[in-house]
Amino acid sequence: MTDKTVRFGILGCAVKYASKFVRTVTLLSPNAVILAVGDPSLETAKNFAVSNGLSPETVAVYGSYEEVLDDERIDAVYLPLPVTLRGRWAVAAGGEKKHMVVEKPPAIDAAELESLLEACESNGVQFMDGAIWLHHQRTARIEEMVFNSELLGDVRHIYSTMTTPVPEQALERLSKDAMGSAGAIGELGWYPIGAVLWAMAHELPTFVMALPSSVVTNSSGAILACSASLHYAPTATATVHCSFLSHLSTELAITGSKGSIWVNDYVIPYEEDKASFEYTTGAQFVDMHVGWNVKPEKVTVECGEMSQEVMMLTEFVRLVGGIKSGVSKADRRWPEISRKTQLVIDAVKKSVDVGCKVVYL
Amino acid sequence: MTDKTVRFGILGCAVKYASKFVRTVTLLSPNAVILAVGDPSLETAKNFAVSNGLSPETVAVYGSYEEVLDDERIDAVYLPLPVTLRGRWAVAAGGEKKHMVVEKPPAIDAAELESLLEACESNGVQFMDGAIWLHHQRTARIEEMVFNSELLGDVRHIYSTMTTPVPEQALERLSKDAMGSAGAIGELGWYPIGAVLWAMAHELPTFVMALPSSVVTNSSGAILACSASLHYAPTATATVHCSFLSHLSTELAITGSKGSIWVNDYVIPYEEDKASFEYTTGAQFVDMHVGWNVKPEKVTVECGEMSQEVMMLTEFVRLVGGIKSGVSKADRRWPEISRKTQLVIDAVKKSVDVGCKVVYL
Repeated sequence: MTDKTVRFGILGCAVKYASKFVRTVTLLSPNAVILAVGDPSLETAKNFAVSNGLSPETVAVYGSYEEVLDDERIDAVYLPLPVTLRGRWAVAAGGEKKHMVVEKPPAIDAAELESLLEACESNGVQFMDGAIWLHHQRTARIEEMVFNSELLGDVRHIYSTMTTPVPEQALERLSKDAMGSAGAIGELGWYPIGAVLWAMAHELPTFVMALPSSVVTNSSGAILACSASLHYAPTATATVHCSFLSHLSTELAITGSKGSIWVNDYVIPYEEDKASFEYTTGAQFVDMHVGWNVKPEKVTVECGEMSQEVMMLTEFVRLVGGIKSGVSKADRRWPEISRKTQLVIDAVKKSVDVGCKVVYL
Repeated sequence: MTDKTVRFGILGCAVKYASKFVRTVTLLSPNAVILAVGDPSLETAKNFAVSNGLSPETVAVYGSYEEVLDDERIDAVYLPLPVTLRGRWAVAAGGEKKHMVVEKPPAIDAAELESLLEACESNGVQFMDGAIWLHHQRTARIEEMVFNSELLGDVRHIYSTMTTPVPEQALERLSKDAMGSAGAIGELGWYPIGAVLWAMAHELPTFVMALPSSVVTNSSGAILACSASLHYAPTATATVHCSFLSHLSTELAITGSKGSIWVNDYVIPYEEDKASFEYTTGAQFVDMHVGWNVKPEKVTVECGEMSQEVMMLTEFVRLVGGIKSGVSKADRRWPEISRKTQLVIDAVKKSVDVGCKVVYL
């Protein structure tokens, strides 16, 4: 462990995917290390430490979140808490000057996110949400190859989904208390809405609209599914679909004035060590319309051990390292992306609330 | 030539894709033959005959559409006329008891299509529109494999496009006179709207809505681009995008409760002699969310010389042969598909006219 090492604490040990974080930190050694885990249930925290191979000699196991935040050795925290707890504990973490990676959505609405980001800003700490795919080498490759090189031209239409099926008997158990009132729009929509923003260089849409009759709720009013359209003046539209009733799908299709691009696994690539996308550019039907002049090009990006989780944490550790050593200040790009994503989510939720009318941003 | 041979006349020799019809009929020989071509410009008709290798010894070349319809040797006509002329001449062809293949959209609205289909029905002639892709072996394979076998489950969301770029300087020349008032919604939307209907077993949506601000017109009011949503109670939605401002795209993505399917060349396959689609079923993220339990399956259907045009004309010739020999009556399935497609197009156009409000069917 050196002065540059980022020392992590984990707030919340109840969800399976927190194990992925441990695995990623281990791969980053010696630039990052886990020094504490905490959960309101000490037993849950202990079991988590044991099952993830965290040695009691080096890792403190706490029966509360506070103790992790009070641990002065800790530079940064990872928050895989239930969504309705994230905002509160992220604000507390900011108050203790802990840098943080907060699972998505990091708050229940834009107001809570704003107070969270203000806590980070006023305390000079780095914030990053858990939308890992933005850190993937494929994402960078698409930006460089497709957007910047004009292969795609101007974006005309974007389609994106994040759907994952919940067994029918469990749909009734999904609640606003656990998911926040945005329900699937926040939990799942964070991805396709983020993908649209990304494709539009993080420009906010002019307005959004939940598609009439696309909203499905359970008997407690929790939103289980929603489709929405996002509009960019003058000539770009996007549609997104998020649902707990649909099969696992994570699609992103962008149609531009000069080309098209498809990624069907943008959230989590089919395989960890490589990822692909397909595109066409300058496509036309051949004479007599019996085929195309070009076929889709498939581009595969090899990642080796630099999975998207490792890429994300590498970036986070680099930023925190810069702050720790006094070389740089907290990077505002990542919180800004989170802020815009949440603003659009809130607008879609508002559209649902007002009967699927247009909501301007 | 036998009694079973279907003798074709072509109404309109001005468009390039009429040559594809000649090529297809030639491949079908001896079940189909072209005996006449007609165009208001005799020179255009003559040039068409020469450039398509139609011998003046066997093929009559007329300087009008009427003469083709008056030619009693002709069983059936192909109408690659401008869209605003199709309806009128199709009605005339029906009156002369000619079976017909009419390019899509076959009429400018549902009312005109209805009079056309009534003319066919009352004269006992077969009607078919030019949506060739419905006849492709791949289409049948998807129906059989994906829809019927429950690989896909219930359809939850459909996304489909048909976009083809028109050079900027030519966009102003696109007119309602040439395209009909539905513009791109009819000319291009016939495909994605037809694809949604197909995926929903040709059930009409409950309502449709043009997406606000998605509609682009030129200075004469011709519709150049439109996105729309189609809604099926209780839990299926579809979005379609048709545009003369976007790069060539013909995408169809269907997300079901159990699987997903993608076809990016559903209108005209990349290659004439084979076509593919991809699907996943039962997909889940693997433990720790570092990949998927399945990767997309690619299914390729080999067609050989039985291209989708040949498949369509084979079906048409089979149906006309049945009628000619008194064995069967005109098949109502194909006109019914056209009717429903046009009803949805009209509803989307109406939604545009009323400010992108919901229009019930």
